[in-house]
Amino acid sequence: MGNRKYSLGIDFGSLSGRALLVEVDTGREVATAVRNYTHGFIEDVLPASGQRLPHDWTIQDPEDYIEVLRDTVPAVLKEAGVSPEDVIGVGIDFTACTCLPIDAEGTPLCFLPEFRKEPHAYVKKWKHHAAQDEANRLNAVAARRGEAFLARYGGKISSEWLFPKIWQVLDEAPHIYTAADRFLEATDWIVLLLTGVEARNSCTAGYKAMWHKRDGYPSNEFFKALDPALEHVVDEKLSRNIRPIGEKAGEINARGAELTGLLPGTAVAVGNVDAHVAVPAVGIAEEGRMLMIMGTSTCHMILGTEEHNVPGMCGVVEDGILPGYLGYEAGQSCVGDHFDWFVRTCVPESYRKEAEARGLGIHALLREKASVQKPGESGLLALDWWNGNRSVLVDVDLTGMMVGLTLATRPEEIYRALIEATAYGTRMIIETFEANGVPVREILACGGIASKDPMMMQIYADVTRREFRISASDQTVALGSAMFGAVAAGKARGGYNSIFEAARVMPRLKDLVYRPNPAHAEVYDRLYAEYRILHDYFGRGENDVMKRLKEIRRQAREGGVT
Amino acid sequence: MGNRKYSLGIDFGSLSGRALLVEVDTGREVATAVRNYTHGFIEDVLPASGQRLPHDWTIQDPEDYIEVLRDTVPAVLKEAGVSPEDVIGVGIDFTACTCLPIDAEGTPLCFLPEFRKEPHAYVKKWKHHAAQDEANRLNAVAARRGEAFLARYGGKISSEWLFPKIWQVLDEAPHIYTAADRFLEATDWIVLLLTGVEARNSCTAGYKAMWHKRDGYPSNEFFKALDPALEHVVDEKLSRNIRPIGEKAGEINARGAELTGLLPGTAVAVGNVDAHVAVPAVGIAEEGRMLMIMGTSTCHMILGTEEHNVPGMCGVVEDGILPGYLGYEAGQSCVGDHFDWFVRTCVPESYRKEAEARGLGIHALLREKASVQKPGESGLLALDWWNGNRSVLVDVDLTGMMVGLTLATRPEEIYRALIEATAYGTRMIIETFEANGVPVREILACGGIASKDPMMMQIYADVTRREFRISASDQTVALGSAMFGAVAAGKARGGYNSIFEAARVMPRLKDLVYRPNPAHAEVYDRLYAEYRILHDYFGRGENDVMKRLKEIRRQAREGGVT
Repeated sequence: MGNRKYSLGIDFGSLSGRALLVEVDTGREVATAVRNYTHGFIEDVLPASGQRLPHDWTIQDPEDYIEVLRDTVPAVLKEAGVSPEDVIGVGIDFTACTCLPIDAEGTPLCFLPEFRKEPHAYVKKWKHHAAQDEANRLNAVAARRGEAFLARYGGKISSEWLFPKIWQVLDEAPHIYTAADRFLEATDWIVLLLTGVEARNSCTAGYKAMWHKRDGYPSNEFFKALDPALEHVVDEKLSRNIRPIGEKAGEINARGAELTGLLPGTAVAVGNVDAHVAVPAVGIAEEGRMLMIMGTSTCHMILGTEEHNVPGMCGVVEDGILPGYLGYEAGQSCVGDHFDWFVRTCVPESYRKEAEARGLGIHALLREKASVQKPGESGLLALDWWNGNRSVLVDVDLTGMMVGLTLATRPEEIYRALIEATAYGTRMIIETFEANGVPVREILACGGIASKDPMMMQIYADVTRREFRISASDQTVALGSAMFGAVAAGKARGGYNSIFEAARVMPRLKDLVYRPNPAHAEVYDRLYAEYRILHDYFGRGENDVMKRLKEIRRQAREGGVT
Repeated sequence: MGNRKYSLGIDFGSLSGRALLVEVDTGREVATAVRNYTHGFIEDVLPASGQRLPHDWTIQDPEDYIEVLRDTVPAVLKEAGVSPEDVIGVGIDFTACTCLPIDAEGTPLCFLPEFRKEPHAYVKKWKHHAAQDEANRLNAVAARRGEAFLARYGGKISSEWLFPKIWQVLDEAPHIYTAADRFLEATDWIVLLLTGVEARNSCTAGYKAMWHKRDGYPSNEFFKALDPALEHVVDEKLSRNIRPIGEKAGEINARGAELTGLLPGTAVAVGNVDAHVAVPAVGIAEEGRMLMIMGTSTCHMILGTEEHNVPGMCGVVEDGILPGYLGYEAGQSCVGDHFDWFVRTCVPESYRKEAEARGLGIHALLREKASVQKPGESGLLALDWWNGNRSVLVDVDLTGMMVGLTLATRPEEIYRALIEATAYGTRMIIETFEANGVPVREILACGGIASKDPMMMQIYADVTRREFRISASDQTVALGSAMFGAVAAGKARGGYNSIFEAARVMPRLKDLVYRPNPAHAEVYDRLYAEYRILHDYFGRGENDVMKRLKEIRRQAREGGVT
């Protein structure tokens, strides 16, 4: 292997962490290792105390992340036969907002014996939804005060984000709030753990903590209006020192070296977010090209050079995806989850038996049956809101709808209608971007669905009338982190001077291009017109039946009716 | 058994015929026999020629009906040990409109060698839908001419009824139209076969052939406007001599005796329709009490003393159900069919396995799981139009819709939502009757669902806020025909002088009464309010998406798109 140089991407997902070792000059992926989190999601009972957690809680034990570092990094070095001295840089990405309280030494409060039984001392996962009350109050106060930052987030701050979560700690466990020296994103905590440097990244600060490159955080007056105890939350519990992504955060220190087997001095990039590091990893380094990460949910990211407020988007952040660009983000909260629900809930035994007899997976059988259907042939149309609507309408209380059902409707027709519904949802997001000054010329995709489901990708191309190109990597996210690691090392040490340089060399796309079939696109134009009508009818207040049904459901479950 | 007297009800269903022997003075059912039709529905290929039938055809071979008479009547006499001389009367009922062309001797044209290979020479079943074009033209002409009869049928004549079917014969096989001496309802043809008497009944004439007790048939001018060759269709191919139901048509003749083993001279009632004979068989002999026959579809019947035009109903016919009363009929085209579709299409393997392991039927398992849900708890709401809407909206192009779906939605919740949707549809029919001068005070039910599904009946009681009583007979329809047979015999021969007398003695109801649960009814009021909004939005032209989707589907299937 001579003196070929490598960089390491470490991707912390929802339930596991992965390390990927990449050749810096080619982007070739040479070894990978995965470690499942020992504790996974902690949602029902806190192991340290046996106490039941309230509804909507999802926390984690950061010990799980340490295990990932300790196990996967040595494993990939060993598998590839690469010496630590040839590893020039490390990049970290994490699901976000995933945050935790730490003490002055950087130790998670939940590691301290006195807080081991305190749920609020643990990591709050992105899908922790128990701060909805705080989010509602925050949005109300921000709207009342006419806070300008609201428009950058489509008009609404999510309960999944940093300040509602911190505020929940203050509300429910003020002694934990007091004991916390700082609150930190988990991605920044890993960097701190490996380097001893606190380098808060511009991506999560922008997308999850209402920070703006020019305006900074919301004012102390705003936080005081939430709760007098929060007036100085930024200065007391966070920091105004935000580091652009793409920079070097620091170097592996003795403790980081002991944990991972990497050499002290190895460059570590400013931490980042899983979806966002994938953007340069498919070669996107300019505006007009959207990346879709398609898995259980879908995340849409696109760069711009001007700041536009796009209604109903997840956020626009300068330096949020690539330095120097405005990064726009949108999302659909139910994509792969949708099809899994369908397969779990609605696929008849006869299909299971047919799949078994033919040695096919159930999704493969359904795709086979659905792929011979022509657009429009089923007569079905669905709204893809089984898990609410994350972008454009930004409303978790919306629900799924299907119309056109008959006694002849078959399972594969419902399956295809669900796929088409998510494609209409994507087209709605694209049109909303374009109508608000953010052009979308081309789409790149990565994630499990993009690499494994040609039928779905063709439907997306037909529905959106756009070409789709697919990442050649099955671990695009970890590749992106490795690219940031190579940039942190810099050209002098065998890496790159910027993420733009790395994006020209390291990514690979499949040769395959999904191009819209004009005849199909014409039918889908007609179906999409129907989708829009129903989208607005059910989603923009003309008939709030979905919300009323949820309210009736809530009352029924709370025992108002016996 | 002494000189106890019996009557015989013969019920010709869609795929089988049934004979039921009943004690006249008690209504006790003493023996029953069923014969499946040898040819069943002829829908794909005509056996006599091997020729393919076009889409939407459903015909039958009347030889099947002869087999029913020949097999079942001797079987019940033998089983009961009853002598033919103690059988005082016979009643016949049939699905309608089920019609056929006959020659001057009453022989079906399809029995004649020269017409054996002609599809139009056979019996056209009620579900033969290939005369839609003729029905559309008939409705257009009737509307243009302002024909008064239209209002009695909710504004629309169905393609399932007599004149569209006769007109189809004229359009597609004029030589058959010419060769036909008459067209007859199958129920009247059975009476003709047994007695030699042509006694056209007021029920099918009224509900299926636009006949009115005072106004008679539509004018010759109207028929001429359809097609000059139809100008004299009533006089040339039918008859203006219509006999009220409840009368004696004639007596078994030598041929009828040879076929059935009954004695010549046995009284035979004027023929009738399956749903309609059930009304007196649950003891209804006055206005204000509705009968629901609940099976694959549901039929609603109620008596009135004044003629009201109720929009969107199947018809109002004087003497149509009981002599001297206006008979109102409405229907829901998808009830049991709905749940069968669901079980066939949407029930996952795990549920099948659980049912199997516990020795339960799949419907029983779903009912068990659905019955523990509280009203409103699922958050689901459906429109029950999987097979179009037969009453209130009268629109076959409407389709099913469901809203409120989430990733937590379970199969039993969908199942219950479908049941509730049919209950909302029934409430809509009741409210439409009441809003138009036909009060509905109490509901009686018969049919497979009424006798076997207490959960569903309780939901219907809760949704409609009305008490439901259930027929004690599992063969209410055949019992009704036996009652008409006893009336045809008359009191002097051991029967009854009127169907009203018989209705006081022979029917039995279960002791069980389903009474609305006030707390449930309150929740269902709220859900029904939502149903009404969506019913009108999708069904009354505000958003014709269902029709546009069907049109797109039609074009896709016809290969407009590849």
